[in-house]
Amino acid sequence: MTLTPIMDRDALNRFLETDFPQIHTDGKVFDVTDVGPGTVVMRLAPNERHLRPGGTVSGPTLFALADVAAYCVVLAHIGPVALAVTTNLNINFLRRPEPGPLTCTCRLLKLGKRLAVIEASIFGADGEDLVAHATATYSIPPR
Amino acid sequence: MTLTPIMDRDALNRFLETDFPQIHTDGKVFDVTDVGPGTVVMRLAPNERHLRPGGTVSGPTLFALADVAAYCVVLAHIGPVALAVTTNLNINFLRRPEPGPLTCTCRLLKLGKRLAVIEASIFGADGEDLVAHATATYSIPPR
Amino acid sequence: MTLTPIMDRDALNRFLETDFPQIHTDGKVFDVTDVGPGTVVMRLAPNERHLRPGGTVSGPTLFALADVAAYCVVLAHIGPVALAVTTNLNINFLRRPEPGPLTCTCRLLKLGKRLAVIEASIFGADGEDLVAHATATYSIPPR
Amino acid sequence: MTLTPIMDRDALNRFLETDFPQIHTDGKVFDVTDVGPGTVVMRLAPNERHLRPGGTVSGPTLFALADVAAYCVVLAHIGPVALAVTTNLNINFLRRPEPGPLTCTCRLLKLGKRLAVIEASIFGADGEDLVAHATATYSIPPR
Repeated sequence: MTLTPIMDRDALNRFLETDFPQIHTDGKVFDVTDVGPGTVVMRLAPNERHLRPGGTVSGPTLFALADVAAYCVVLAHIGPVALAVTTNLNINFLRRPEPGPLTCTCRLLKLGKRLAVIEASIFGADGEDLVAHATATYSIPPR
Repeated sequence: MTLTPIMDRDALNRFLETDFPQIHTDGKVFDVTDVGPGTVVMRLAPNERHLRPGGTVSGPTLFALADVAAYCVVLAHIGPVALAVTTNLNINFLRRPEPGPLTCTCRLLKLGKRLAVIEASIFGADGEDLVAHATATYSIPPR
Repeated sequence: MTLTPIMDRDALNRFLETDFPQIHTDGKVFDVTDVGPGTVVMRLAPNERHLRPGGTVSGPTLFALADVAAYCVVLAHIGPVALAVTTNLNINFLRRPEPGPLTCTCRLLKLGKRLAVIEASIFGADGEDLVAHATATYSIPPR
Repeated sequence: MTLTPIMDRDALNRFLETDFPQIHTDGKVFDVTDVGPGTVVMRLAPNERHLRPGGTVSGPTLFALADVAAYCVVLAHIGPVALAVTTNLNINFLRRPEPGPLTCTCRLLKLGKRLAVIEASIFGADGEDLVAHATATYSIPPR
């Protein structure tokens, strides 16, 4: 499976801003930092709202990071199709993240006509500890 | 498996307010409405922050509802152990919810010494359409 | 969602025998025992091949039971479409089953044009203990 | 997380033969081919029993491959603890495998005191096409 992205980092970030403004209600929290063949890297700079006591990032925030990053890796390879929707997301929480930014690396496991399957690995601020791991399925509307 | 809750609705809602205030940042959004043997029902009254264009409730909000409700059904049966943590959550998104409150019914599938497994069904405002379905695993700290 | 089955118990068992003979390599192990609106009940009579030391039924056998029963509840409602395929299956193993037959109750959570989502509950020989719980997604070929 | 295996390939294959003979009922089907820090590679040589019409390997066989390989990567790092049990397995089926042997690469995402989380990638005979992808949780008995 050779995958070639057709949207780059800036195009993805612009698309999130214009078509998905609600994820930026609290400032620019989600940021695509890299795009490659079958992959996207997204950074999350958490604010108070995303934290739990002790400074750890909340579960729903980790879920949102995996979900938005998975959406981006799909869009990067099929173009800005706003109607792709998550049908399934399975997430394992592995370690409590330290306070600080998180990085999510997403990889397309499959890009079919109707379904895309994505793996998402979320790393802590040190870039080494795997904080959470998810697999997601997106349904792709008929083109 | 006979399960007897040891925290009632009011005790659960008080616990959420005192130990989990961050989920109420935007007003009282999550509300335990019923507790039974092995079950908890939680209501979500979404505000603007939880909505996507068209008035539909966002995926991360559905995730948070399933996760908090699962936490409550565990606490209801083991007492206020703040350190129970989600280790896995698998969610299927079934239908776009209509605008309006959502109801999540949680059921303990297993309550072991180390792990609890919970099923969560999220219904739309009409109380009939199944909007999302999740299973979650919580790790229970040694008592 | 009102669901009306269009294949009954005998039609499903005949379909399994003619189109899916490999699941009966070791004798008639899988048996549909009941069909209702949105539901199918399947019985597994394990033989030596399905057991682990101590007489407990193996994980792959529990997986196969959930998967075949999920397939049957889809077929029961869309007709004998041999090409429906599992795209995702998430299974929680809850208790070691006692030796003896197992019963799997399947329920359609969603029956869309492209995807069906099914919940499967596997009970032990006593009919009360929940041994395993699964959710599965089937992709439905265009009709 | 630095992981050092304490069982090598031959030790794992011997353990499977002596403690898990039932997986070899039909001949030596499962074979550990490589062990590394946090990883195990397992080969499956399917026989008639594992095939579906058209020569494709069945879903339960792919499940069993992911499950046994995940078990081996846990054992490789904690030693031959026969009582580690799968508590959750989530599998995505991505492509119909071509006839021929399959290879499963397993990676420890977390090795805790109580739980291990493993990622399993199953490749087809060509060694390139990703046929299925799974994540599994194993419960580790107190040592």
